[in-house]
Amino acid sequence: MAASPLIQQLMEAFRCLPGVGNKTAQRMAYHLLERDREGGRQLSLMLQKAMDGIGRCSDCRTLCETETCSLCAGNSRDDTVLCVVENPMDVEALEQATDFRGRYFVLMGHLSPLDGIGPEELGLDGLGERFANSALQEVILATNPTVEGEATAQYISDMAREKGIRTTRIAHGVPMGGELEYIDSGTLSHAFSGRRDLT
Amino acid sequence: MAASPLIQQLMEAFRCLPGVGNKTAQRMAYHLLERDREGGRQLSLMLQKAMDGIGRCSDCRTLCETETCSLCAGNSRDDTVLCVVENPMDVEALEQATDFRGRYFVLMGHLSPLDGIGPEELGLDGLGERFANSALQEVILATNPTVEGEATAQYISDMAREKGIRTTRIAHGVPMGGELEYIDSGTLSHAFSGRRDLT
Repeated sequence: MAASPLIQQLMEAFRCLPGVGNKTAQRMAYHLLERDREGGRQLSLMLQKAMDGIGRCSDCRTLCETETCSLCAGNSRDDTVLCVVENPMDVEALEQATDFRGRYFVLMGHLSPLDGIGPEELGLDGLGERFANSALQEVILATNPTVEGEATAQYISDMAREKGIRTTRIAHGVPMGGELEYIDSGTLSHAFSGRRDLT
Repeated sequence: MAASPLIQQLMEAFRCLPGVGNKTAQRMAYHLLERDREGGRQLSLMLQKAMDGIGRCSDCRTLCETETCSLCAGNSRDDTVLCVVENPMDVEALEQATDFRGRYFVLMGHLSPLDGIGPEELGLDGLGERFANSALQEVILATNPTVEGEATAQYISDMAREKGIRTTRIAHGVPMGGELEYIDSGTLSHAFSGRRDLT
């Protein structure tokens, strides 16, 4: 490598980003150095602020820089419906795609006993308190349709039912615009057995 | 968007990187926040150091944090051969691919009159001084095989010939391992007319 030590260190640092290998890291480093130093300085500043300043909402446990996130702090949301998701990105996706106006709870992961992630690690005791002390009428389980996501949904569903709260699971099936012949057999069998009456 | 302002600013800052759009910026931001804060801090530090600390070698004009780059400062290179390239990445590529032991000169671009990039902007006066005052016997023109790269090579070749220095151009033709039927016609015609005797 002919690059100077500092440039090499910068390339190495870029490799912490997801999907960035040697070649992409090199392109990123030289792009900023040759064409956009101001952008690089701004990125450095925002990274430093975000890495140190962003914690978790005391209420829904999503990532935010304030004590409670803007969704939890607002009064305009419906307190009787709670949507449980795995990640903060899922909240963004649901907010963009749906007209859901209830509250969220972000697990920051899923149950995975082999990795040492049990109910305590996901903060499910806090969720249990919420089930006991609130006006909750429905818990929507929007964890991922993976083995771990399903197990997590089942676990939380059992917790909610003990308190007499209705639980629902987002529908699994053929994606809109998809073609049957290209859908994997697991999804297709799920969609077939979960068929609904046309009204 | 449900993300907190600081997270949104971080995503926005990531978009200064080449090939990073909204979705990739979101993934990068959440990846660092959820899984690799230390990596994010390190990236912030290296960015800040590099954006402020990296200048240009006074000799070959490549990017480096010292007065002259390690290649120019070393005594082990051959002073009689000079390879002219457009970008610092080209130096890295040539160092990896070839056993070239001469010196480099990095233009940091190519002649492009429409964008206001003339000989002065590329530092060609400095290159001219080098042609006049050194023991140079060969100038290898390794600019890109584009219209601008060819024009730049031709311009520098004329400068060197005035001083009686031999100039060479890297070969253009069919890439190794390529298949003729997939090569564009410009390259193929270049390769055909530039055919060489088998020895």
